[in-house]
Amino acid sequence: MTVSNQERLARVGLARVTEPGSLDIWAALQAASAEQVWASVRAGEPLGQLGQRALDGLAARLAVCDPQRDLEQLDRQGARVLCPGDDEWPGGLVWEPSAMSGEVRGMAPPFVLFAEGPHHLREAMAESVAVVGARAATAYGTHVAKELGFALAEAGSTVVSGGAYGIDAAAHRGALASSGAPTVAVLACGLDLVYPRGNDRLLGEIRRQGLLLSELPPGCGVTRVRFLVRNRVVAAMTQGTVVVEAAERSGSLSTSGRAADLGRHVMAVPGPVTSAMSTGTHQLLRQGCSLVAGVDDVLEVVRPMGEHLTVRARGPVHPRDRLEEQTRRILDALPVRRPVSVARIAAAAGVSTLMVQVALPELLGAGLVEQRDGGWRLTTLGASG
Amino acid sequence: MTVSNQERLARVGLARVTEPGSLDIWAALQAASAEQVWASVRAGEPLGQLGQRALDGLAARLAVCDPQRDLEQLDRQGARVLCPGDDEWPGGLVWEPSAMSGEVRGMAPPFVLFAEGPHHLREAMAESVAVVGARAATAYGTHVAKELGFALAEAGSTVVSGGAYGIDAAAHRGALASSGAPTVAVLACGLDLVYPRGNDRLLGEIRRQGLLLSELPPGCGVTRVRFLVRNRVVAAMTQGTVVVEAAERSGSLSTSGRAADLGRHVMAVPGPVTSAMSTGTHQLLRQGCSLVAGVDDVLEVVRPMGEHLTVRARGPVHPRDRLEEQTRRILDALPVRRPVSVARIAAAAGVSTLMVQVALPELLGAGLVEQRDGGWRLTTLGASG
Repeated sequence: MTVSNQERLARVGLARVTEPGSLDIWAALQAASAEQVWASVRAGEPLGQLGQRALDGLAARLAVCDPQRDLEQLDRQGARVLCPGDDEWPGGLVWEPSAMSGEVRGMAPPFVLFAEGPHHLREAMAESVAVVGARAATAYGTHVAKELGFALAEAGSTVVSGGAYGIDAAAHRGALASSGAPTVAVLACGLDLVYPRGNDRLLGEIRRQGLLLSELPPGCGVTRVRFLVRNRVVAAMTQGTVVVEAAERSGSLSTSGRAADLGRHVMAVPGPVTSAMSTGTHQLLRQGCSLVAGVDDVLEVVRPMGEHLTVRARGPVHPRDRLEEQTRRILDALPVRRPVSVARIAAAAGVSTLMVQVALPELLGAGLVEQRDGGWRLTTLGASG
Repeated sequence: MTVSNQERLARVGLARVTEPGSLDIWAALQAASAEQVWASVRAGEPLGQLGQRALDGLAARLAVCDPQRDLEQLDRQGARVLCPGDDEWPGGLVWEPSAMSGEVRGMAPPFVLFAEGPHHLREAMAESVAVVGARAATAYGTHVAKELGFALAEAGSTVVSGGAYGIDAAAHRGALASSGAPTVAVLACGLDLVYPRGNDRLLGEIRRQGLLLSELPPGCGVTRVRFLVRNRVVAAMTQGTVVVEAAERSGSLSTSGRAADLGRHVMAVPGPVTSAMSTGTHQLLRQGCSLVAGVDDVLEVVRPMGEHLTVRARGPVHPRDRLEEQTRRILDALPVRRPVSVARIAAAAGVSTLMVQVALPELLGAGLVEQRDGGWRLTTLGASG
């Protein structure tokens, strides 16, 4: 399936006159081609479910819309228009809004994406994780996000975030520091704009080394709703979303909410209970989402079963740990310094002298006890651990 | 049911010759009276399941045992001997070891307790929570443990712990600072001893203001096994156990393990993922135990349903949050400074002018927009939040 220039133009036009996630245009596209829908919008003529009232809502924007000019501008900028059917169109962006729960129920999937950067979007998204969180992050949160972004990229997972201050920026920066998988920023404005301004250098680096992505044509600024609607793209394209820090009822929980609505994995990083920036992640953990203390926790969740088996760091096993409880009790009854008799050990341990006589060879063999001056005492190893 | 002096003496004697949690004496006590079991131990004559081999194991200790002297010493010290049947004997200390899972399977419940302090043990335990954790706690952990100990005591919950350095001591100290419920330290040595020495002032305060508790007769020192066996008493007497900080594979997870084995609630406090002292609690949270960020989380778990309904702190609700999405989108399209026309708002929001005209009265009523110079703009409230 190839996408014609006319269809591409039509989808840019449709993106111009509507807001991302709106149901009207999306519903019309389920029944007719993009060219048919765009023709009916331009003519102001109802088509199937796209009624007169919806068309009236598009009229004001239609008057100032020029998709051909948009395409030329994108071209000059080095950005591309992606449509369903393009090889680069990522998986995960298909759902039936009326069949979903939560806020995604009222949100349509994207029907066009604008992309800029030297990576193939679908390939980059094949193994990808959203790392999101508070803009007003703490030093702890940004540290963890950066480390996690780096480790995920090193492990070959694309780090997707929203390019915002705080956690988003730290996750992108961590990923950029790796020479592994790329990082993708999904913006809530046109690719010709930079929001927030303070992240212009970071977003420039992502444009050059990763991928900048948006549903919005050039010139469209951010609005509050656009941030929330954008978050469904971040959630839908990735296998799971990790929230690093979030205040209670914070906007940074929006992406994880979308991820849950869409059946994606939701993960959260715990933090100090004394930190307001961890109340949101602790609430997610109370609700049963997966706890993330490091990259292994993420890979264990998002990779198909068996591909990533976490070997958790363990302390070295002390020979003592391998002993039966009875034997361990006898070991505990031995002194560190002055050697004692088998009878004394038995009295201290509360076992028979026979049991002590049976246990001592094992303890001797394990290097835990030694015989001195006709009695028994602990070795340095036996006294340790 | 009253406990005779002879039975009390017999149980002290039995505590002298065996280790806490041992199955032999406990099994014998299920079939015969304490006086009968004690008589058979003294005579070295098997009785039911108490066979010759078990009796041999007790012989060394029996030779140096004088329960009457123990009773006199306890009396002088102001400590008391508690037995099943005493009004003060707490609930929760009955289980069938062979029916349990985990390590409690091999551990019998206590058959005698030594107590010192101005509180009625059973009443103190009626609502009680174990707060435990690492000895090598961080400043964060001791801060949280102290706050939690204080808040639990204020709420009327007895804080039970092991009197150790770190988390245990902080939890006890927090509870002592409250004028609410008492705090109980369960020791792994006789009540005449103080372990660890560095906590002697703290343990002295608990002795005077709370309760010191042990299964061990006077003079018995701590051993590694006694710590672990002691932990089952802490877990069993309380409605739940909160682990504040624990390293991986740490001994401080022993109490929560016992609590789980005994069907008690297990709770854990999260912390920075960068802290080794929180790896144990994060592991507990991965396994599905309840997350504790404050006293409300604990009370919600341990109090019978409905008695404590947590009202979580919420940010104030902004009028914007109550708007329909469409109306919110229109609000987002309004400028902060220079007033604009209805048509401009419609184009910016991507809705019809009719919809803007319908929405503006509602936004005006909510104090979010204002009319100026023939156009519309946001109020200070509308631009905030």
